[in-house]
Amino acid sequence: MAEVGGKFEVVTREVADPGRGQVRVTVEAVGVCHTDYYFINGGYPVEWPAVFGHEIAGRVAALGEGVEGWSVGDRVAVGWFGGHCGICDACREGDFIHCAKVAVPGWQYPGGYADATVVPANALARVPESLSAVDAAPLGCAGVATFNSLRRSAARPGDLVAVLGIGGLGHLGVQFANKMGFETVAIARGEEKAELATRLGAHHYIDSTAGDVAARLQALGGAKAVLATAMNSAAMTATIDGLRYNGELLVVGAAPEPIEVSPFQILATSKTVHGHPSGTAKDVEDTLRFAALTGVRPMTETYPLDQITAGYERMLSGDARFRVVLTTGR
Amino acid sequence: MAEVGGKFEVVTREVADPGRGQVRVTVEAVGVCHTDYYFINGGYPVEWPAVFGHEIAGRVAALGEGVEGWSVGDRVAVGWFGGHCGICDACREGDFIHCAKVAVPGWQYPGGYADATVVPANALARVPESLSAVDAAPLGCAGVATFNSLRRSAARPGDLVAVLGIGGLGHLGVQFANKMGFETVAIARGEEKAELATRLGAHHYIDSTAGDVAARLQALGGAKAVLATAMNSAAMTATIDGLRYNGELLVVGAAPEPIEVSPFQILATSKTVHGHPSGTAKDVEDTLRFAALTGVRPMTETYPLDQITAGYERMLSGDARFRVVLTTGR
Amino acid sequence: MAEVGGKFEVVTREVADPGRGQVRVTVEAVGVCHTDYYFINGGYPVEWPAVFGHEIAGRVAALGEGVEGWSVGDRVAVGWFGGHCGICDACREGDFIHCAKVAVPGWQYPGGYADATVVPANALARVPESLSAVDAAPLGCAGVATFNSLRRSAARPGDLVAVLGIGGLGHLGVQFANKMGFETVAIARGEEKAELATRLGAHHYIDSTAGDVAARLQALGGAKAVLATAMNSAAMTATIDGLRYNGELLVVGAAPEPIEVSPFQILATSKTVHGHPSGTAKDVEDTLRFAALTGVRPMTETYPLDQITAGYERMLSGDARFRVVLTTGR
Amino acid sequence: MAEVGGKFEVVTREVADPGRGQVRVTVEAVGVCHTDYYFINGGYPVEWPAVFGHEIAGRVAALGEGVEGWSVGDRVAVGWFGGHCGICDACREGDFIHCAKVAVPGWQYPGGYADATVVPANALARVPESLSAVDAAPLGCAGVATFNSLRRSAARPGDLVAVLGIGGLGHLGVQFANKMGFETVAIARGEEKAELATRLGAHHYIDSTAGDVAARLQALGGAKAVLATAMNSAAMTATIDGLRYNGELLVVGAAPEPIEVSPFQILATSKTVHGHPSGTAKDVEDTLRFAALTGVRPMTETYPLDQITAGYERMLSGDARFRVVLTTGR
Repeated sequence: MAEVGGKFEVVTREVADPGRGQVRVTVEAVGVCHTDYYFINGGYPVEWPAVFGHEIAGRVAALGEGVEGWSVGDRVAVGWFGGHCGICDACREGDFIHCAKVAVPGWQYPGGYADATVVPANALARVPESLSAVDAAPLGCAGVATFNSLRRSAARPGDLVAVLGIGGLGHLGVQFANKMGFETVAIARGEEKAELATRLGAHHYIDSTAGDVAARLQALGGAKAVLATAMNSAAMTATIDGLRYNGELLVVGAAPEPIEVSPFQILATSKTVHGHPSGTAKDVEDTLRFAALTGVRPMTETYPLDQITAGYERMLSGDARFRVVLTTGR
Repeated sequence: MAEVGGKFEVVTREVADPGRGQVRVTVEAVGVCHTDYYFINGGYPVEWPAVFGHEIAGRVAALGEGVEGWSVGDRVAVGWFGGHCGICDACREGDFIHCAKVAVPGWQYPGGYADATVVPANALARVPESLSAVDAAPLGCAGVATFNSLRRSAARPGDLVAVLGIGGLGHLGVQFANKMGFETVAIARGEEKAELATRLGAHHYIDSTAGDVAARLQALGGAKAVLATAMNSAAMTATIDGLRYNGELLVVGAAPEPIEVSPFQILATSKTVHGHPSGTAKDVEDTLRFAALTGVRPMTETYPLDQITAGYERMLSGDARFRVVLTTGR
Repeated sequence: MAEVGGKFEVVTREVADPGRGQVRVTVEAVGVCHTDYYFINGGYPVEWPAVFGHEIAGRVAALGEGVEGWSVGDRVAVGWFGGHCGICDACREGDFIHCAKVAVPGWQYPGGYADATVVPANALARVPESLSAVDAAPLGCAGVATFNSLRRSAARPGDLVAVLGIGGLGHLGVQFANKMGFETVAIARGEEKAELATRLGAHHYIDSTAGDVAARLQALGGAKAVLATAMNSAAMTATIDGLRYNGELLVVGAAPEPIEVSPFQILATSKTVHGHPSGTAKDVEDTLRFAALTGVRPMTETYPLDQITAGYERMLSGDARFRVVLTTGR
Repeated sequence: MAEVGGKFEVVTREVADPGRGQVRVTVEAVGVCHTDYYFINGGYPVEWPAVFGHEIAGRVAALGEGVEGWSVGDRVAVGWFGGHCGICDACREGDFIHCAKVAVPGWQYPGGYADATVVPANALARVPESLSAVDAAPLGCAGVATFNSLRRSAARPGDLVAVLGIGGLGHLGVQFANKMGFETVAIARGEEKAELATRLGAHHYIDSTAGDVAARLQALGGAKAVLATAMNSAAMTATIDGLRYNGELLVVGAAPEPIEVSPFQILATSKTVHGHPSGTAKDVEDTLRFAALTGVRPMTETYPLDQITAGYERMLSGDARFRVVLTTGR
């Protein structure tokens, strides 16, 4: 894409040789994420022309100088986390996701809407044999965001955990919550999603258009955690009173409006609103392994890479069930 | 006090004999807390006439049936936590502060603005020899609120911890933070509080009227925790950008307006807004022991119990340095 | 049983009326636990004559004075945890399992090898509708011991967790580990248990008679946790080198010999040996709910209560698959 | 030193230029650690001839290719942690201390008993202005080992924490424990260390030669943590019964014999034996900052570098108070 608000174009370019610490990855599948909308519309300061795509699955094609631990042919994924600097304080603490210069494929460097791309070796996650490239791709962003925030939450097996929103992130969150042994509640708009929720593993379903969500969560005992995937701050705010004492609202959806938290709501009951970023390359790898182990899979609709515009519009329409993935035919 | 919006009156009443599981406590000192203002003005549904006072220090005077573990003459304190039911789910989990029927002296039953009062035995905290009644009283509410939230936070010794507000709670928070080994920042209004902050143990002082608080916190490395004691939600909101990644805003001040938390502010940086209640009787006891061990003391102004109106007005004026405590002459 | 080393006898006795804070429970099923062997042989200071039985499932038959929250007819379980004092420091902290006077049914008071028994109300756990009494009974001891130590461990979903021993505790531990989303390893003696292990949910099986257990755990990546249910300290010790860095040996089996832990083994790798008690009444309730939610069930062999001697001998033989439960025909 | 069991010799050698990712450090002070004894006597597989010394304080003298974040002249320390590979699984998790190829200065490469040495940049810790090189040096090994294990323990301010052994590590552990707000117990051999213990900040002293250590810890309420610095496994074992429920034995001393842990000792009481390694470069930096903030300082005896043999023998004698540090006169 050439500029802000532009269109996707197929261009032919030489992919650079990987430099020190980098690898070239041949792309097999690459997911289309809602964040692209922000990139395209100038929400983030991207360098133009730009190649987006940060849900990449493919194979290592070439190794730059000094790269160890990877071989040509290895199946790999690269998600939202596109590498860390290794120098800043966060990196020195081993907290790579908070690296001062954390990179995102398609933002700081050309991403995965391509036949091949060059990424830092520290952005690579290994893909288990039993996962297809199409399934692996969305797990690098939508998957790790939900998996990682759930496994790091204070909720313990058997606790009531709600997932707000059944969409690109939420349909994975419900599956993960079930496979982690949580008593799982899905919250979405409309009664017609109830059956899907059950199929994904929800033990309870709350139609948020049919009355007070918080009261219905409390009727189930109160949620120990609400994983908020919906891009809707008001909906997030509305769940706070549905948390149990010591409960936490896990914010993973980058909704633009502020969440309103009254001290009175959270003081006596020790409630928490907690932001959660996606996860490092190792977290992506753990997500992929967990999916392989437990059978969690994204629901995908695939398009050939050269039909990217159609795929992007399908994603934007909100009708995709649930992640659009582009394939390169490899 | 006879009714909402009423005046303090000295009345003579028989103090009931302690029932099963209760004790009678002779009051030696009782702190005046800002919450009284809410009680008096109808902010909580109190039964009238009412006797407030939930920062009580005194001695056990009589034991009700079935009370074990306490003897007449024991020095005790009773703070905001006035007892738990033992029956509800929270109590069965041992999480007494979240008891569905948690009582507060002066709210669910007559409080400590009296020569004696009757309380549940499970509301009692032991007072160490080296603490006077006047010093012990405010630690049962202002003390435990700050001590407990700091010791349970994710901050570890050496981390940068800021205390927002140097008042009844904050002047204790600064002392506790220092004695726990935190690099301590005090944030208050006006340059003239800088010296006091230093004396209380702050390593840094930020005058919140003199520019961007968040930026100055970031210049110090970013706060791992901000203990928000000020009754001011906007001031709390303003510190969120001063948190380090993984930092937490510990809300202990019951400010009426909502805190505004943008998902964008907290997502990539894993920030947390966490409400923290005061603490149980055992937490009060731990607070008192810690104060005895480390020399933390409230700064107090004392009035005789029968000058309660003067003491209350002094508290309301905001000029008290820092807790008003009523004494009974015992 | 009349004395140390005695025999089980059927006697007819009046069951006392429940006193203050107690309830009478009609027994429907009661599990036979290996601990009985220690009781019978003088390993614990029991008062004689004694009635053992601490894996009780039944119904509330009568309420003593002051009991709230329970009704006659409620389905309940009472496990190893037989009540707490409410007075000691641990109880004041809400840490009931460490109560200085924690009671065990059949030890501090007559247990469940009876048509009815009287227990403190704070020992009761609610039984979900979908669990039979026979299934609920063993979950109050063998179940909660394994469920609770796993859910409180530092292992997170997807981590490698090994269960040492497939017996009364271990066959539940394997199921729980699987349902919590752990990559589950079962370790037992002999290749013939491999199939059972797989059926219970193990992803890997290690025959401990066929070579170095630790090396095989390391070949799988190293265990984040080993749940040690086998009554064999040497076998526990042998798994320490199979732990990953930061791994923990969760000791739930009361093996008589010491575990030997070399500082060199655990220092550089931050390993932990952690003892884990069973769990409180609320923990038992959580265990039962989790079993109802996920389908975890004990494998049981039932005997009528009056054939207790046969049931006990079957348990002692080590051939039972896996918990012997006595039924009263109610 | 030329070979196992050899003698220290002063030799003149060219110090190599720093390679990629390395820096040359001019040594100002370097501590003598008891581990040298193991190196010299073949306890670890060192390459000969060898230069020991892993408690280094000095200044950056030259930067190798690709090094960012450091400048010539920066004051730095390098302790036991001498760099990580960045490639292995532990490094990918950010858990550098468990790096599969973690290096120790003086073991995997020439150490600090020299005028200058070359180290990986990721081994460097910044030294605060207010700390002298002599004070900083021992904090990179003895300091971080005690500071880091205490700050990461489950003990919270006000808890009873015991330090076993007042020696090179223990005299720092007692100071750290006090400054973190723990009720601090020092345990050592002989009544004559009582006064020193008090001066270092201990609130209680236990002479381990004068009766049952565990019983005396229990008389103080039981220790939430015992920091075991003494090179004596039997002494460690003897403190387990002095732990409170949920208490933990933090093993930092590399004693050769196994600690004996009876399941019965730790099961009902939820006790833990936890090995704790020293800490990464960032942990060393945190240790130095904490020392600068709170006034914790090692007690040192200094020798010129060319009197290394005298310094080493003084250390071995056990009479040094408490760390021997060699100085280069810079």
